[in-house]
Amino acid sequence: MSPTSRIPQTPVEAEEDFYTSFLRLDADRMESIWSESPDLYCIHPGGELLQGRDAVLNSWQNIFTSADPPKLEYRLLYSRHEEKIAIHLVEENIRPSGSSHRAAVVLASNVYVLEGEGWRLFSHHASLPMMKRGRTEPDRKMH
Amino acid sequence: MSPTSRIPQTPVEAEEDFYTSFLRLDADRMESIWSESPDLYCIHPGGELLQGRDAVLNSWQNIFTSADPPKLEYRLLYSRHEEKIAIHLVEENIRPSGSSHRAAVVLASNVYVLEGEGWRLFSHHASLPMMKRGRTEPDRKMH
Repeated sequence: MSPTSRIPQTPVEAEEDFYTSFLRLDADRMESIWSESPDLYCIHPGGELLQGRDAVLNSWQNIFTSADPPKLEYRLLYSRHEEKIAIHLVEENIRPSGSSHRAAVVLASNVYVLEGEGWRLFSHHASLPMMKRGRTEPDRKMH
Repeated sequence: MSPTSRIPQTPVEAEEDFYTSFLRLDADRMESIWSESPDLYCIHPGGELLQGRDAVLNSWQNIFTSADPPKLEYRLLYSRHEEKIAIHLVEENIRPSGSSHRAAVVLASNVYVLEGEGWRLFSHHASLPMMKRGRTEPDRKMH
């Protein structure tokens, strides 16, 4: 539960810190990797919009206090880095600790921003694909 | 079904074209607003990852050929513009044509990029919040 000592020098390092904090249920580290912007936002799979540090960090605190460390692997599918902003498309494989269920595959769009001396997580938009209905057949009623 | 004649000069214009093409089921306009990058991606609500122009545009074609024009309103909740990239957080209110159901509220993270003479849509990650279970209580099993 000790805060991270390094300041991420790249978006990839920031992403490592983000997922490490999740893996270890480390609220201090999670707090340190989010942007200081009042506009930061987080959308958990199937979740409402959470905007601002309090709402976002409280949601992670709730997750951390109600769970054992999950098994978590993530894979960077795409990244685009500009001078002060980076877009990452990530596939997360998450299995709750002790669960015999197969891992859930979550898709996440993560945005990192350069703030001061390091990179921070600005937004995390995650979603859980429903059962496959067809190769290119999304929920037609919504879009 | 005529292609759009303007080249979006701002991310906001690109977003207008994106939602107008959806509203009018205009496949030509939809094609013109997406990035030429092979890495572009689209995640429809509850959908799998679609990556590349063919997969993304085919998905919209499928939607357009199976639907009447929806009622659609969108609201830009947050935007951050850099020199060549822009992040938009959007709330979409969508009601299928002729439906008496209340509108679905979809959250979308849209990324726009400056390509050549104009702005294009690079990624669209949309998700549909499930029923509210608590203010900051996402799906704890996933995160």
